[in-house]
Amino acid sequence: MAERPTVAQQLAAKQREISVAEFFERNRQILGFDNPLRALLTTVKEGVDNALDACEEAGILPEISVEIAREGTERLRVAVDDNGPGILRRQIPNVFARLLYGSRFHANRQSRGQQGIGISAAVLYAALTTARPARIVSKVAEEEAAQVVELLIDTQRNLPRVISEDLLLWDRPHGTRVELLLKAKYQRGRQSPFEYLKDTAIVNPHARIVLVEPDGTRVTWERAAPTAPPIPKEVLPHPYGLELGELASRLKATARPTVAEVLAREFAGVTPRALREVLGRAGLSGKEKPDSIHGELLETLLEALRTVPLLPPSAESLSPIGPLLIKRGLRNVLGEIRPDFFAPPVSRPPKVRGGFPFLVEVGLVYGGELPPDQPVQLLRFANRVPLLFQQGACAVTNAVANLDWRRYGLEQKGGSGLPSGPCLILVHVASTKIPFTSEAKEAIAEDPEIDKEITLALQAAARHLRLHLSRRSRREQASEKFDVILRILPRLAEKTSALVGKPVPDLTPVITRIMDVVYVNPSVVAAAKGGSTTTVRVEIVNYTPRARVLELFLEMPPAAFPPDPVSRSPDGSEPELGRMWWTLPKLLPSARAEIALTFPRSSEIDADEVDFYEAGVDEAHLLGADPLPGDWEVRVPRAVIEAAEEAAAAAPPGEETEVDYDGAKSEGALDEE
Amino acid sequence: MAERPTVAQQLAAKQREISVAEFFERNRQILGFDNPLRALLTTVKEGVDNALDACEEAGILPEISVEIAREGTERLRVAVDDNGPGILRRQIPNVFARLLYGSRFHANRQSRGQQGIGISAAVLYAALTTARPARIVSKVAEEEAAQVVELLIDTQRNLPRVISEDLLLWDRPHGTRVELLLKAKYQRGRQSPFEYLKDTAIVNPHARIVLVEPDGTRVTWERAAPTAPPIPKEVLPHPYGLELGELASRLKATARPTVAEVLAREFAGVTPRALREVLGRAGLSGKEKPDSIHGELLETLLEALRTVPLLPPSAESLSPIGPLLIKRGLRNVLGEIRPDFFAPPVSRPPKVRGGFPFLVEVGLVYGGELPPDQPVQLLRFANRVPLLFQQGACAVTNAVANLDWRRYGLEQKGGSGLPSGPCLILVHVASTKIPFTSEAKEAIAEDPEIDKEITLALQAAARHLRLHLSRRSRREQASEKFDVILRILPRLAEKTSALVGKPVPDLTPVITRIMDVVYVNPSVVAAAKGGSTTTVRVEIVNYTPRARVLELFLEMPPAAFPPDPVSRSPDGSEPELGRMWWTLPKLLPSARAEIALTFPRSSEIDADEVDFYEAGVDEAHLLGADPLPGDWEVRVPRAVIEAAEEAAAAAPPGEETEVDYDGAKSEGALDEE
Repeated sequence: MAERPTVAQQLAAKQREISVAEFFERNRQILGFDNPLRALLTTVKEGVDNALDACEEAGILPEISVEIAREGTERLRVAVDDNGPGILRRQIPNVFARLLYGSRFHANRQSRGQQGIGISAAVLYAALTTARPARIVSKVAEEEAAQVVELLIDTQRNLPRVISEDLLLWDRPHGTRVELLLKAKYQRGRQSPFEYLKDTAIVNPHARIVLVEPDGTRVTWERAAPTAPPIPKEVLPHPYGLELGELASRLKATARPTVAEVLAREFAGVTPRALREVLGRAGLSGKEKPDSIHGELLETLLEALRTVPLLPPSAESLSPIGPLLIKRGLRNVLGEIRPDFFAPPVSRPPKVRGGFPFLVEVGLVYGGELPPDQPVQLLRFANRVPLLFQQGACAVTNAVANLDWRRYGLEQKGGSGLPSGPCLILVHVASTKIPFTSEAKEAIAEDPEIDKEITLALQAAARHLRLHLSRRSRREQASEKFDVILRILPRLAEKTSALVGKPVPDLTPVITRIMDVVYVNPSVVAAAKGGSTTTVRVEIVNYTPRARVLELFLEMPPAAFPPDPVSRSPDGSEPELGRMWWTLPKLLPSARAEIALTFPRSSEIDADEVDFYEAGVDEAHLLGADPLPGDWEVRVPRAVIEAAEEAAAAAPPGEETEVDYDGAKSEGALDEE
Repeated sequence: MAERPTVAQQLAAKQREISVAEFFERNRQILGFDNPLRALLTTVKEGVDNALDACEEAGILPEISVEIAREGTERLRVAVDDNGPGILRRQIPNVFARLLYGSRFHANRQSRGQQGIGISAAVLYAALTTARPARIVSKVAEEEAAQVVELLIDTQRNLPRVISEDLLLWDRPHGTRVELLLKAKYQRGRQSPFEYLKDTAIVNPHARIVLVEPDGTRVTWERAAPTAPPIPKEVLPHPYGLELGELASRLKATARPTVAEVLAREFAGVTPRALREVLGRAGLSGKEKPDSIHGELLETLLEALRTVPLLPPSAESLSPIGPLLIKRGLRNVLGEIRPDFFAPPVSRPPKVRGGFPFLVEVGLVYGGELPPDQPVQLLRFANRVPLLFQQGACAVTNAVANLDWRRYGLEQKGGSGLPSGPCLILVHVASTKIPFTSEAKEAIAEDPEIDKEITLALQAAARHLRLHLSRRSRREQASEKFDVILRILPRLAEKTSALVGKPVPDLTPVITRIMDVVYVNPSVVAAAKGGSTTTVRVEIVNYTPRARVLELFLEMPPAAFPPDPVSRSPDGSEPELGRMWWTLPKLLPSARAEIALTFPRSSEIDADEVDFYEAGVDEAHLLGADPLPGDWEVRVPRAVIEAAEEAAAAAPPGEETEVDYDGAKSEGALDEE
């Protein structure tokens, strides 16, 4: 006779395993499939990320096409096509129709896909909303024909179900094409596939990307860099940030015979010297069996690994974009906006968090046709993938919002929150493991280490912005003042002379007394479209009341670019570590000189990035240049220059007139006119 | 001779399955374990959510204790203890040490845990950071002793590993205790276990919760409701929002012989009449085999299910808090803040999205010691669980920020974003499936249906706030004006009389002419602490220049509470659907009457929630009450009242003086004094 089950028995009877596919089918919003707009973006993103990863792993310059076509109401057919290495027939089902299956999760190096979820999630969503299988076409170099496989996911078991398969003669050596029919909606604008691909092109300038929109419009982002980035190497985990449980598992799982060997060969950064010190601090000989270490001994060992100085993590597992390509990518894609200023991109050195290396890069663009009174545009990237959703939940946004941008020349209410202004900020976080807030990979979780690096990179870029804005405003003020002086004084002199019936005097001494600056005015003359060179012209005017022998010093930005100029006029010194200098011919008051430097066009130089210095002129009498810093060697002895200047002063360039202006006062009077 | 593997082969060799435990160990930030502070909160939350779910499923009033104790640097021992039904020995390992395993994922009814991840994730994190097993003590009613099991998770296989087991004599009939040692950090304040438990107590007033903090402080939230909420029932999925793939799977998986039977018995809301119409529109007889439906036929069937009117989803699977308990919970926990105003809580009817029923509830509290110049406090809840992180990424926050609160009396820059003011807004979303943005269950994903319901509920609560604020401001203005008139006029009269040597005239006619309103002024007198009644006093003053027989109408809030008053003075009409009315004794100018209603204290009535109406006085001459709406039956014929009033006017209450004030002008003059 069966007894009535107790509550605990009733509850126990309902307990069961949940398949990961079932879980995500029911919680598709977690994977980025909550609505038809976002589902389309996520599908395109997963397809393109896979394509880029595959091409890069094979050292192939990516050619990617995304075709989106309408098929009935609320349904789109999406096809993502690449020239990657292709996928072996036996792997196709698992790669496209099984969640938590992949090659990149266990590899300790930077890649876009890390979870083994993405593209299978798109296949799951497509089947859920249209009950149609995914169609995969893939050809590997060694086969004659491409494989065509139609697939669904058996959600209760999270296993692939092959619906059909076939062979196809394909007119390319290798590559993969994924085709899905899904409930989706297409539009351009924010958070669209268009924006995603545009942003992808910025940080992947080595890729060529084509988008065919549902109305047939074809958009192409051409390749802006001729070579693929180096393939990131797999590295060993670094002990910094290692958790106790991870160390315990590794000691348990290893096949190596001793603790010393595990530490030396299964972790990065442990040099022989560091190993000795770690073992010493933990009170170990090193010959202990790995699985004999537990309890307090395990904790002491971890503490030793955390405190003994180790080699820093290697950057080999990371694939930063680099300053040159950030700039080139931004220029390539933002061409039509014509920004005034590209800050020298910042690429921070790699750091480590929780055993995983990471680094941060920042690009900043200002002016042009960027909207002046809107919040700045923030482009977030993780491992070269644009993040378009969940901006408010992202560590990048928080780092930007927590910086006081008012100090760098942008408007920002109360000194926190997104600043406003005609500015675009690009932040790229690269890591062997990005801590995303969810499987949809749309926001980076808060982490003090990552936050610190983003902030430092932002500050570095922001300092360039402040310099640009202050230079611009000083130049504008000066040129307004110059304009007034050079226009008004002669008219005043003419009138006064006419009144008193005397000839118009030479105004140079007056003008130079009022101005009393050495003016350095650089400008960039880009070669005409198709030309191969860019010229930086520097005009130097001696608006002081005495003759000067000026020495101009110039310093290029510290990054590997731009290269040395292909020609210089006048020659000046030989470039050395990006530095050059000239001793200019003697300049009488109001006289000017010019220097021209020609660079290969590929150097993409900005006048703003070049620093100019003058020796022997103090800050108050310099415009467009700074006094020479102390760490620069002055090439021509000061005494020689002073002697030359004295000689110049002795020679009469035109007598001073009787009009004895007090510079400051007259300036004020003129300003009021 | 082995050939060198091709790129595709090399890539294929690295493909492998990823265990869900491995995945989440590596991506613990997704589960809410990114840092020691959040890890503690998540652990407490998962433990308490499970305890509450288990007690409710067994119909037990929950007694839950959370003990947090320091154990070494950066380590805390957390124990969560409940009086629930207990867990059978054989289920303990799977429940606590296996991810994606549980009883609530497949049950279509509201519960806190839905994923089968939470508590196992805490066990995973504890082992990762301290290498220590979880200790589970559980006793079911039918056993003599409690089971004690120590557990770890085998992450590579996502299976439990039992470390030790034992029996324990436990001094309670049934219950479960989970103990974990983890890397964690304790502090009070925002996003702390303290705040989480306080908020939990608000929306679970049937639970008694004790927290023991690391310094030994013991905090108790006492039970504020004597009975557990009804146990939500499992319901069938509703066809609204069903995806094509889901319909296809169900037709494939069913054991029923015909389409008609599947539609009628495996879905909610399909009445026999609706079934006929659905089959008709889909061109089916109903006798087709379920798995014979695919392709276009399947699509037509889904379209028919979407468009034929079905019964709305049942609310039986949901467990709303209800207006009474929302208010009681808020009062219980916010007692020390003494808010001025508790808006009548809003509990929306259930709706359906994607086949899952959901409903939204809103509570709003204003004034008291809530900070006046800060953003409003937003308490977000999902299935009675407080959401403390990711506020910026949550649909609730967006709905609040997108409402124009300026229209309801709160400050809000630009009419969007979180409003400011001494206000607390509680939003509860209850559903058989909450679309969380991640497994950490801290934010609800954007969804147009949910957004719409939250907005409607917020608007309803906000309208009460506006009414409260406008009543308050009208009363304040009036009492200022009354004060001036009642204080200044007599002094003016005295002085004038002294000057002209005449006696001071009776000012009543002047005062009533200037005022010219019937003033209804309710106030609530709560019984002293421990008392069992609350009294609502209503003062009615006839500040008009003629005698009036007033008829006061009163309407209680529409919810099931408060109950009818236990005593009324004077008696007036019998309460009927929350409505009562009185015909007051004749009031001469300046005379007053009072009504007193006594309620049981448990009714928790607010003066603001009672609406007062007057018949026969127009809006301009009413303060504190509104003209009687048209849908109310007037109990005493107008003619009778008018006759009574005329009689009253004929009797001389004191002759009008010669001073013939023009009300409006004199008022102005007095205001200026």
